[in-house]
Amino acid sequence: MSGSLVIVGLGPGSQDLLTPAASRALDAATDLVGYGPYLDRIPENIPGQRRHPTDNRVEIVRARHALALAAEGRKVAVVSGGDPGVFAMAAAVFEAVEGGTSQWRELDIRVEPGITAMLAAAAEAGAPLGGDFCAISLSDNLKSWETIERRLRAAATGDFVIALYNPASKARPHQLGQAFDLLRSIKPPQTVVLFVRKAATPETSVTVTTLAEADPALADMRTLVMIGATTTRLIPRAGQRPWVYTPRAEPGMAR
Amino acid sequence: MSGSLVIVGLGPGSQDLLTPAASRALDAATDLVGYGPYLDRIPENIPGQRRHPTDNRVEIVRARHALALAAEGRKVAVVSGGDPGVFAMAAAVFEAVEGGTSQWRELDIRVEPGITAMLAAAAEAGAPLGGDFCAISLSDNLKSWETIERRLRAAATGDFVIALYNPASKARPHQLGQAFDLLRSIKPPQTVVLFVRKAATPETSVTVTTLAEADPALADMRTLVMIGATTTRLIPRAGQRPWVYTPRAEPGMAR
Repeated sequence: MSGSLVIVGLGPGSQDLLTPAASRALDAATDLVGYGPYLDRIPENIPGQRRHPTDNRVEIVRARHALALAAEGRKVAVVSGGDPGVFAMAAAVFEAVEGGTSQWRELDIRVEPGITAMLAAAAEAGAPLGGDFCAISLSDNLKSWETIERRLRAAATGDFVIALYNPASKARPHQLGQAFDLLRSIKPPQTVVLFVRKAATPETSVTVTTLAEADPALADMRTLVMIGATTTRLIPRAGQRPWVYTPRAEPGMAR
Repeated sequence: MSGSLVIVGLGPGSQDLLTPAASRALDAATDLVGYGPYLDRIPENIPGQRRHPTDNRVEIVRARHALALAAEGRKVAVVSGGDPGVFAMAAAVFEAVEGGTSQWRELDIRVEPGITAMLAAAAEAGAPLGGDFCAISLSDNLKSWETIERRLRAAATGDFVIALYNPASKARPHQLGQAFDLLRSIKPPQTVVLFVRKAATPETSVTVTTLAEADPALADMRTLVMIGATTTRLIPRAGQRPWVYTPRAEPGMAR
């Protein structure tokens, strides 16, 4: 098989956070496959390069289309927001490979990592992910709400910092409130909660609050929600919002 | 205060995975502060830029030194492997700010995100982080082994994919084995385990095994260990190691 497929992480949005390796993978492709708004982020500077924009809801169909192009000998780049391996396109591509023709397993398939949303969001706020942490997608399109609750409970019991991807959508306006209610039954009310919207863009906004007061209406599809561990702390500053960080050390441990 | 401090993520090693924003932050600095081997990765192309290499064991001392330079009006970049916010320098800097002079809170402090080790390691193997996941540092320099065990147990109970940072060092040769033993008491023996050494370098190696057979001796300081969820799967390939991925969907959920 002469074709190839690379799944490229575009990072949170800005070209400034696209790695040189990802840029080069995009430039080398004969075909770009991806959700339309992600393709629109990529400058059209390669003559003859074809674009195949698709709807956001059909990840597995998009993955099969990309594999079929690669099997024809094309050099395909599947574009993905953030990091392709974190709630994004890489798993969909491998799922399509497993369910597809045996030819597809012979293709040259690579993943180019990117800055995933929680890293960009954490950087805006300070260092909230400084200790052990979990990442959970609140979307129940692909898993049951029972599984999500089980994981929230486990993450709270383990006192992890929790990063919530896909915290809210028009189809699921109530789930973040349910998640906060569950966490309130386990974690202290003064636990730090962060809403970081559009991290690493000129319109970034950061809200620092507590679990007792966290308002789920602050989250939308462009928001990353973080819930602190018991050790997560604020550093007050005059005239500015506090920095948020989770110390590397437990209280009482030598440094 | 005219000085500034930026904590810059260098990614896993290759210049190819250093973001343009991180490169620019390094170029704009008057002073680079960091662990010697990280500083050695940065080309010396800025005349007059000062370098302050330090030992790896003194993160908080390094952070204070960097803050003192910034308070003198210098433009300081603190360099960090991977992403500064994930088991790296950002939390140490904010810890130093909190414990330091009130002047330091007035400084312009920023974090430049980077590709953290688990993203690079996952990309080498396929898409093992395709579902919900946790990141845990096995180092007990800064937290008790009881806390680490509590988190491993919570992560296993929640059926998260688990990424283990700092899985082994000369000072702690037995802990990864203890962690595997604990996980074996909760998770199925056929659970996928990955050892990814020196991800995103020309010497990358990936070992795919099971929890029953995982050999802790395969890990060193340059290894990222991943333990799959119950849904994590292998895709066999002729003459090559299998791809590893965690499907986005639970069994039985519509796509």
